Amino acid sequence: MNDLLLTGKLDALLSHADAAMGDAEARLCDFLRIPSISAQPAHAADCVRAGEWARDQLRGLGFTADLKQTRGHPCVLAHHPGPGPNAPHLLFYGHYDVQPADPVDLWTNPPFEPTRTDGPNGPHIVARGATDDKGQVVSWIEAFRAWTEHGGGLPVQVTCLIEGEEEVGSLNLDPFLEENRDALSRADIAVISDTPMWNIDTPSITTRLRGMAYVELALHASRRDLHSGMYGGVARNPLTLLASILGQIHDADGHVTIPGFYEGVPEVSPAQLAEWEGLHFDEAAFLGDIGLSVTAGERNLPALVRLWARPTAELNGIWGGYMGAGAKTVIPTSAHAKISFRLVGDQDPEAVVAAFERFVRARLPADVRADFQLFGASPGIEVPTDSAYVRAARAVLEAEYGSKSILMGCGGSIPVVGSFRRLLGIDSLLLGFGLDDDQAHSPDEKFELTCFRHAIRSHIRLMGELGAA
Amino acid sequence: MNDLLLTGKLDALLSHADAAMGDAEARLCDFLRIPSISAQPAHAADCVRAGEWARDQLRGLGFTADLKQTRGHPCVLAHHPGPGPNAPHLLFYGHYDVQPADPVDLWTNPPFEPTRTDGPNGPHIVARGATDDKGQVVSWIEAFRAWTEHGGGLPVQVTCLIEGEEEVGSLNLDPFLEENRDALSRADIAVISDTPMWNIDTPSITTRLRGMAYVELALHASRRDLHSGMYGGVARNPLTLLASILGQIHDADGHVTIPGFYEGVPEVSPAQLAEWEGLHFDEAAFLGDIGLSVTAGERNLPALVRLWARPTAELNGIWGGYMGAGAKTVIPTSAHAKISFRLVGDQDPEAVVAAFERFVRARLPADVRADFQLFGASPGIEVPTDSAYVRAARAVLEAEYGSKSILMGCGGSIPVVGSFRRLLGIDSLLLGFGLDDDQAHSPDEKFELTCFRHAIRSHIRLMGELGAA
Repeated sequence: MNDLLLTGKLDALLSHADAAMGDAEARLCDFLRIPSISAQPAHAADCVRAGEWARDQLRGLGFTADLKQTRGHPCVLAHHPGPGPNAPHLLFYGHYDVQPADPVDLWTNPPFEPTRTDGPNGPHIVARGATDDKGQVVSWIEAFRAWTEHGGGLPVQVTCLIEGEEEVGSLNLDPFLEENRDALSRADIAVISDTPMWNIDTPSITTRLRGMAYVELALHASRRDLHSGMYGGVARNPLTLLASILGQIHDADGHVTIPGFYEGVPEVSPAQLAEWEGLHFDEAAFLGDIGLSVTAGERNLPALVRLWARPTAELNGIWGGYMGAGAKTVIPTSAHAKISFRLVGDQDPEAVVAAFERFVRARLPADVRADFQLFGASPGIEVPTDSAYVRAARAVLEAEYGSKSILMGCGGSIPVVGSFRRLLGIDSLLLGFGLDDDQAHSPDEKFELTCFRHAIRSHIRLMGELGAA
Repeated sequence: MNDLLLTGKLDALLSHADAAMGDAEARLCDFLRIPSISAQPAHAADCVRAGEWARDQLRGLGFTADLKQTRGHPCVLAHHPGPGPNAPHLLFYGHYDVQPADPVDLWTNPPFEPTRTDGPNGPHIVARGATDDKGQVVSWIEAFRAWTEHGGGLPVQVTCLIEGEEEVGSLNLDPFLEENRDALSRADIAVISDTPMWNIDTPSITTRLRGMAYVELALHASRRDLHSGMYGGVARNPLTLLASILGQIHDADGHVTIPGFYEGVPEVSPAQLAEWEGLHFDEAAFLGDIGLSVTAGERNLPALVRLWARPTAELNGIWGGYMGAGAKTVIPTSAHAKISFRLVGDQDPEAVVAAFERFVRARLPADVRADFQLFGASPGIEVPTDSAYVRAARAVLEAEYGSKSILMGCGGSIPVVGSFRRLLGIDSLLLGFGLDDDQAHSPDEKFELTCFRHAIRSHIRLMGELGAA
């Protein structure tokens, strides 16, 4: 097929996709109505339903598709041969699971009743999982649909992997990749849409992700709850102890004080620094958007360095004692916290968790027990920025948006990128269509319909570009 | 009436009380079945019911008794003229409200279904409020009953005040005392049973109580919950900030670091120290009973000094962020804590709260808002140890128990003692019948039936002793 024919066909496909936006939106809302919260056992059946929904969509487009058991929530594994075994082979990865909806009372509408709302960027869909990651998953399924129904079939071989435990650390994904290595490792490149764009007008490819280790800590002191008057001054208070220990994790300059924590953290090269400076990140606006004005984190480092190239230790939850209305004068038996570490470069997640454990245990009296529970550990990632796939993706995005694309970092973690490299020998192309203000993990999470449309069209273009190569 | 006649009459009364123990226990259980949790607005009607129950008991014994409105839960106010205006006048004070039952799942039986259980000290009643304070209130109502039904009437004038907000700081009690000063200030002495005994064999009068200031703190940072990957390293984490601030409240030696906190804390006199040393407090056993072995609090001070004569700062609750199952990578908008300060000597509760506020605000970035809510502030108390009432009470207790009584301190707070002195000019006699292992404020709170019986009999004796004087 020559370029002219291809251009005409592509234009027709993009028009078909535009015409089908209403249907695509309805299908996305069906997917969003399933409360597939992977962290909460009560939603296990909903996770299965969400996987089945995605499986059935792919089957309807001619894929062989199955819901495969893991030790946790199942994975959707699907394959389409496209034009044949000599065509390029793309592995699309996404996740059907979503974050818990708490605090539910801060949502304008119920989190699993998708609502179309008008905003400054046009209409958007509000629902838990809208941008992270159901909207982005559906964008590539809709691209498959356009090629299948109006383009004479997919121009590339496609394998899809849609997991159900991304939001809880993907603990069962590596074994799954190993068990299905034959099916998966035939792909040439993984395509992942689970990252934000630089901004709504700037198409972006993410080449740097922070890793993460997530730990829950429980301190257990007295055998029973105590009256804080009758025992205060003699009995250990685990809440006070917890605050004291966790309050020591950062020094006054925002550095993490856990011994060995920064081992393996690379310096950012002057060239990289210069490139990020060229992005003119507006930290005041970034903070202003969330109601803040004072930067946090490590003092004297540029904000993008702190977000993309430096590790963090963040408390994600803390609880213990009396949390109800009014006063209760109790010294409770236990105190709890959830802590996550974002990791970069060669930081070893297991070593960081072990160092944290030592840090806590070194501060415990002999009669207080500490329990640690690990919810995922993955290292930071850098993907090659000079590959043919990155070049093709940039060309596609620039054609779609009519503006220059950028290569960016991301403070978040997508552990599967490291697993694909390590277990399957496959690099990833991270094409993100989310926005910083999409409220991923927050109440009123949304996905802009203009982002949804660009995502569908970009995936249509990418398959055409790589299939024609 | 001569002593011999009195002795015979007293023996008869005590025998009647012993014979009526089954009925007394049944009445106590009726009272305990009412979940009068003052801290929880959902139980406001139950608080009224508990007040009505006590009012009706007193009316049944010939008292004029009313449930009087306050700005919070109502107070029971009752009066009986006894033998006439020249008889001694006792003001019995207690509270019908109870602590929240959380954590409810740690109770062996539901907290408001009283259960009779056998233990090493014989049978006891398990229920929220059993020892604190319903069991002790019912003990003096049963003493009134014995005198009324078998002693020819009360030998003293009696006023009863049973409030419903003791567990939430008695915020509306002082105005109530002022409004009812005429009725209340006619009493000669207040009798309060809301303290523990030294041990089950040692009758005890408490002459020292710590005061308390209870504060809830909320820190508000970003306008919405944030993804800890996308924002971690730039956005303020209020949980981390809260842990850091609260972790600074104590130094490595257990002293409170809030500037000015120890102003007004008196030295303990050598004589007092010697007296407490004579009690041979077994700190290892005290801690061992609650599953601990390492002393907490201020280093290098005797345990009884730390419990009775030194102030504390205790976290009673802390919460924020994700507290559910599994992992959620959130930087929440807010973080919360409940903190109580036990106070002694001339420490000024308002000054302590103000110093804590300054301590917190001095550590806040400009874009974090702190809200403080006060749930009660009362100074520490010392009641005279050499009065005729204390002498009479010791004689009564020693006759009842056949062993020497002691004068002790208490780490808890009963603000009404200070209010009675300040607003009514009345001292208090603190006759406690609770035990340290009664689990006040904890799951499986109990009251020993042997303590209940001794309490009823001691109150019968006390009225006889003072009435005959």
